[in-house]
Amino acid sequence: MGFSSSDLKSDRLSLARTISAVENNTPAGKKALDETFADSGKAYLVGVTGAPGTGKSTLVSRLALWLRKEQGLTVAIVAIDPTSPFTGGAILGDRVRMRDLAGDEGVFIRSMATRGELGGLALTTAGVVQILDAAGYQMILIETVGAGQSEVEIARLAHTTLVVESPGMGDDIQAIKAGIMEIADILVLNKADNPGVENTERALRANLELGYPNGHNRKAGHSEYLIEKSENRDRWIPPVIKTVATRGTGIGELCEVIFTHKDNLAASGRMQMREKERLATEFDHQLKLSLFENWKNNRTPQDIAKVLEDVYERRCSPSKAVERLLAC
Amino acid sequence: MGFSSSDLKSDRLSLARTISAVENNTPAGKKALDETFADSGKAYLVGVTGAPGTGKSTLVSRLALWLRKEQGLTVAIVAIDPTSPFTGGAILGDRVRMRDLAGDEGVFIRSMATRGELGGLALTTAGVVQILDAAGYQMILIETVGAGQSEVEIARLAHTTLVVESPGMGDDIQAIKAGIMEIADILVLNKADNPGVENTERALRANLELGYPNGHNRKAGHSEYLIEKSENRDRWIPPVIKTVATRGTGIGELCEVIFTHKDNLAASGRMQMREKERLATEFDHQLKLSLFENWKNNRTPQDIAKVLEDVYERRCSPSKAVERLLAC
Repeated sequence: MGFSSSDLKSDRLSLARTISAVENNTPAGKKALDETFADSGKAYLVGVTGAPGTGKSTLVSRLALWLRKEQGLTVAIVAIDPTSPFTGGAILGDRVRMRDLAGDEGVFIRSMATRGELGGLALTTAGVVQILDAAGYQMILIETVGAGQSEVEIARLAHTTLVVESPGMGDDIQAIKAGIMEIADILVLNKADNPGVENTERALRANLELGYPNGHNRKAGHSEYLIEKSENRDRWIPPVIKTVATRGTGIGELCEVIFTHKDNLAASGRMQMREKERLATEFDHQLKLSLFENWKNNRTPQDIAKVLEDVYERRCSPSKAVERLLAC
Repeated sequence: MGFSSSDLKSDRLSLARTISAVENNTPAGKKALDETFADSGKAYLVGVTGAPGTGKSTLVSRLALWLRKEQGLTVAIVAIDPTSPFTGGAILGDRVRMRDLAGDEGVFIRSMATRGELGGLALTTAGVVQILDAAGYQMILIETVGAGQSEVEIARLAHTTLVVESPGMGDDIQAIKAGIMEIADILVLNKADNPGVENTERALRANLELGYPNGHNRKAGHSEYLIEKSENRDRWIPPVIKTVATRGTGIGELCEVIFTHKDNLAASGRMQMREKERLATEFDHQLKLSLFENWKNNRTPQDIAKVLEDVYERRCSPSKAVERLLAC
């Protein structure tokens, strides 16, 4: 069966099936990726990450609604669920969002379980995003939970990455913030009606100053903080945008800043650079996978089992075992 | 320079240097891994993970203190910091813990930044743990932040994995808990003196019931909840242990349960199984890496650049490009 881009556009069920095929890395999924590749690269990808409890899901739903209703864009949401690698089931149901977004053909929502081997998740997400992109969705929101390394890898897929914080999340949050600061294009301080918002905002800005030692006063307006001429190239300084996602407060401003970042990326040529980086990474992953598959197809399971036995008995380290195996 | 296990034992500075070499994947680091492999496999590995703000760091310090002072064991802590892949700097300072544990030769603390490519972190952590293991540390506590996929991979390194929760962490926490439930051997409900602890405990136990559909009433004592005969093999049901790490409450009980789990693992043969799985995974990673390196050494950068150009121009999908490259 073939999956052309026009099929995907007209048929949500076929789109959902294709995404499943990509997720499960079936031959049909691989074929779909090859066939839709030329049609992809048009969507704008927004990554949304942050610690649990910051209200990311609500924010993403609000963003999707705004982009759809106010800007008339088609929107897809890819939510990476923190589910077990063992069961592979998605926990955060799609239905939570469906209340507001249901019945709209211009919105597509997909939850993905974090299954498969390390490195596989970013690759699978890239594949799913490509399918949605080729299907004609103009904005794709990629939501991940937490600040782990896989989240960082996924954030790299996006053109604009939002890091969501909320007031009073405990002591560890400072470390998280510092760690994830550099992937943030925009910092969203959600639940901005909660007590302690001033402290959190101050901490966020202080952290930003650390990242930008020249010291900039970021103002509330958009135009002031956007570009800093530094090292002879345009540098984007992440603004802090306050929102109350449950009430929709600040969503319009946030969207505006996303589009300003988009324009900035395009104007500075970094959009194309990011795209190339992303494709090169995907190519790299595929290459490693193929080399491994090709090699394995020329070996009997017994060959490998024999070497592994030596590793289990600690007669030979894993890297020495690999060396030996590749020498013969 | 050579790194023998006895060197490591006698010289903390050389141990720290070796760990850095392993972290940076230098030739000296690789050599150290090969040379210490035969001496490793003796330490007991405890993984500690959970969302930010649950008090993991304090808990880990308390655990280390208890194991050291009450059980007379040597203890190493490997803390995986949620730092940026760009700067590679560790944010959570070692000094936070050093107050209580400083000056004790039987305790070694190491913070690791989450740098390098996906899949690399688990591999690097395994290497660092192996070095500490060979150096004679009897208990190794591996602390990660969050519930991302890399954390799950790291948790798999451990013999016993603790998942730390705390009361009132917001709505998303339910999803996280469900997702991370299956890697938990022991659930730690820290900050158990905070309001809302009963609700969180109830939610945790309800989640456990979901995972164990036969429905078990886990009691406060240890002996009742430990083993369930199911599917013809011993099955461990994760107990919920309440602690107040800042005051040291519940730490003794927690240690006791860790050792009960250890005995259970050993008796059921699953200890050896986990070890084999871990080594097989490491072998796999090494094999993929070596195959890639070997292949690359026989290619000119121009060969690859030419194919990548086709990918950038979307004339050819990454997987088709790999196919073409491997065919010639």
